[in-house]
Amino acid sequence: MRWSNYLMPTLKEPPREAQTIAHKLMLRTGLVRKLASGIYEFLPAGFKCLKKIEGIIREEMNAAGGQELLLPTIQPKELWEKTGRWSAYGKELMRLKDRNDRDFCLGPTHEEVITALIGQEISSWRQLPLLVYQFQTKFRDELRPRFGLIRAREFYMKDAYSFDANETQAHDSYDKMLATYDRIFARMALKTIRVSGETGLIGGVMSHEFMVPCETGEDEIVMCPSCNWGSNVKILKEIPKTCPRCKSKQLKREKAIEVGHTFYLGTRYSAPMDAVFTDARGKAAPFIMGCYGIGVSRIIAAAIEQSSDKYGIIWTPSIAPFQVLISALEYEKPEVKKLADTLYQELLARNVETLLDDRLQTSIGVKFKDADLVGIPVRVNIGGRSFQEGHAEIRLRKTGNTEEVELSRTTASVLKALEVNGKI
Amino acid sequence: MRWSNYLMPTLKEPPREAQTIAHKLMLRTGLVRKLASGIYEFLPAGFKCLKKIEGIIREEMNAAGGQELLLPTIQPKELWEKTGRWSAYGKELMRLKDRNDRDFCLGPTHEEVITALIGQEISSWRQLPLLVYQFQTKFRDELRPRFGLIRAREFYMKDAYSFDANETQAHDSYDKMLATYDRIFARMALKTIRVSGETGLIGGVMSHEFMVPCETGEDEIVMCPSCNWGSNVKILKEIPKTCPRCKSKQLKREKAIEVGHTFYLGTRYSAPMDAVFTDARGKAAPFIMGCYGIGVSRIIAAAIEQSSDKYGIIWTPSIAPFQVLISALEYEKPEVKKLADTLYQELLARNVETLLDDRLQTSIGVKFKDADLVGIPVRVNIGGRSFQEGHAEIRLRKTGNTEEVELSRTTASVLKALEVNGKI
Repeated sequence: MRWSNYLMPTLKEPPREAQTIAHKLMLRTGLVRKLASGIYEFLPAGFKCLKKIEGIIREEMNAAGGQELLLPTIQPKELWEKTGRWSAYGKELMRLKDRNDRDFCLGPTHEEVITALIGQEISSWRQLPLLVYQFQTKFRDELRPRFGLIRAREFYMKDAYSFDANETQAHDSYDKMLATYDRIFARMALKTIRVSGETGLIGGVMSHEFMVPCETGEDEIVMCPSCNWGSNVKILKEIPKTCPRCKSKQLKREKAIEVGHTFYLGTRYSAPMDAVFTDARGKAAPFIMGCYGIGVSRIIAAAIEQSSDKYGIIWTPSIAPFQVLISALEYEKPEVKKLADTLYQELLARNVETLLDDRLQTSIGVKFKDADLVGIPVRVNIGGRSFQEGHAEIRLRKTGNTEEVELSRTTASVLKALEVNGKI
Repeated sequence: MRWSNYLMPTLKEPPREAQTIAHKLMLRTGLVRKLASGIYEFLPAGFKCLKKIEGIIREEMNAAGGQELLLPTIQPKELWEKTGRWSAYGKELMRLKDRNDRDFCLGPTHEEVITALIGQEISSWRQLPLLVYQFQTKFRDELRPRFGLIRAREFYMKDAYSFDANETQAHDSYDKMLATYDRIFARMALKTIRVSGETGLIGGVMSHEFMVPCETGEDEIVMCPSCNWGSNVKILKEIPKTCPRCKSKQLKREKAIEVGHTFYLGTRYSAPMDAVFTDARGKAAPFIMGCYGIGVSRIIAAAIEQSSDKYGIIWTPSIAPFQVLISALEYEKPEVKKLADTLYQELLARNVETLLDDRLQTSIGVKFKDADLVGIPVRVNIGGRSFQEGHAEIRLRKTGNTEEVELSRTTASVLKALEVNGKI
């Protein structure tokens, strides 16, 4: 993309509405804009991040045998009454009536819909285990929407549902998902801690939360660095002083952002909804279920909270909107334009996601500041003093390491930098 | 995917709710299921079709310089009041109140939101032309939801918006989109007729509809086979008997399904919303806009209406959920299982989307019927008589042509069949 007509409006100062690092940086780098309280627009670069995260999750969900589908946003009241959640969900559930005065809600989660579907379509234990998932915009009318994408009323989520024939199979499915989640977050270089979590409005008998430690996190966790025991403090009657698992006395307490949540549901939904299959002995039995969420849009914010400096974002390559930024300094000069354009075309031809800063009448200082701000992993400076001396500069956003390379070797050097630094 | 635990439940008979060919076949082949009136669930194979169509549109929109983004579903009343559409849209607009009693709607279309965004972020003619687009679930509370995905209340759409500095540039943008739409539908082998269309609730000064001729279509068009003049009959005061453009007397009148709609909006939205930029003379001017929709989910239905026979769907390869179906007849037999599994793995290793019919206790007759029903372009029969004679059968769904190949050459023969027949 050419920055000159790419819809990525950077701001020198963060708008007053933003309090956290990620929220400020997402607005300053033109990733998102606010439409209404808790409701955000993903601009093209923000959308690219969203798709990168989605792509990683999809690959790992497919590798775990997941089947992707798409369930409706609008759900009839009757389904939610079967599980008692129509009233239990309270004001967080966004509700509407259609033209015939029938009641519906906007799905904050899809247990009822998927349980009804699978109960209707799957009849035999031979068809189990089954794992289905979707990416979808979800809705929750938060009491206090805040921190941008962290606590939003409309958000983008991956939700998955497992259906098993018995407890043993169901625990295997659950453990497989925990391992899948570890892989997903590792590929995003997102440091997460897995803790025992609340079951809350989803229900079930056990849950795990994947937490990104962060000062502005709204959750609080306590964990043991020795044995990895961990828990959301909300589910503890009191905070233990020694680790309940290994008796270590070094328990750590920190704030965190929840990016993933898994629930072992058992028959919480299949029993009240009468979703049954025929088991190996020929008897009707309710499905044993699990459900597994990842806050896709929230991950963008969590990743930025975890990887930035005073100059801006430091993107992990696997979720960065672009891999390479060509900062064409003094793009007005024909010789700079020629080289920058050539490099741009050569990188695009190799499928390297490249942003070319071709903005005219923009000072070198502004281009440098914007480059650090938007945080693309590999940056190439073309122009200025080094150019006069026959060089381009390749600069890594993360380390700040800068290398001067001969102009004729720019493309090859960029490709090498990507190979060495671009794995995660 | 292995059919034995793939969520693609086929039905021998279409449910009574279905009247049209596509609706019947989509239900019978397990592509979709109904959750409520006009609200459908995309099962895995249906979801794959949706993504195939999305992928083609995305490639062509990007080639046209489009920038993909994602706008919110929930939109505040205030925006819609600025353009007068809050009242004009009537009961088709789905409305809801949040916990603070504020009014919102679920976007059936996004002119207001995008016009507000661009008006706020783009300030100079130098940044124009700009073309943005998104894929999104949309909502319209239809008076009579029917024909499955054709007239649904929740549907999946591509909507694009162009912003230009003057009429000449805007007409160029509009014409470019018309050409892009022709390419998109050609890649799906969808025979469309471009006609002058209604501007309706979207407004603007000119519109074109992309129509798929089809007996069950809800629109009616009149067109001239000689010069390609065409019009939705709705916008004609009376049906002409000779072509208004070339005076041919061979006008054709037919029913059709609308799959795409383009609008030359002019300043219909930018003027009332005060969305302006600074033009080359330094003066504030409203953006000249266009908007461009494609009904992604509706295309699945239209494509099936256009390509099926009495046995089932005949998928065009570019939008088929799978490219190859391996019908493993008598999969219980170890020698059949071995060959079918090997072929399956070899095709997957070459990234060929393959469905393996590995269902046990399923007769050859049922497997043959289901194969024709689901309509995957290339099918390989392994088992039965030909297998005893050392052969596999490769059968093309479209032509019915069947070729016997030596078992050892099965993979190579399938790849060749894909190369020859798999372009569109």
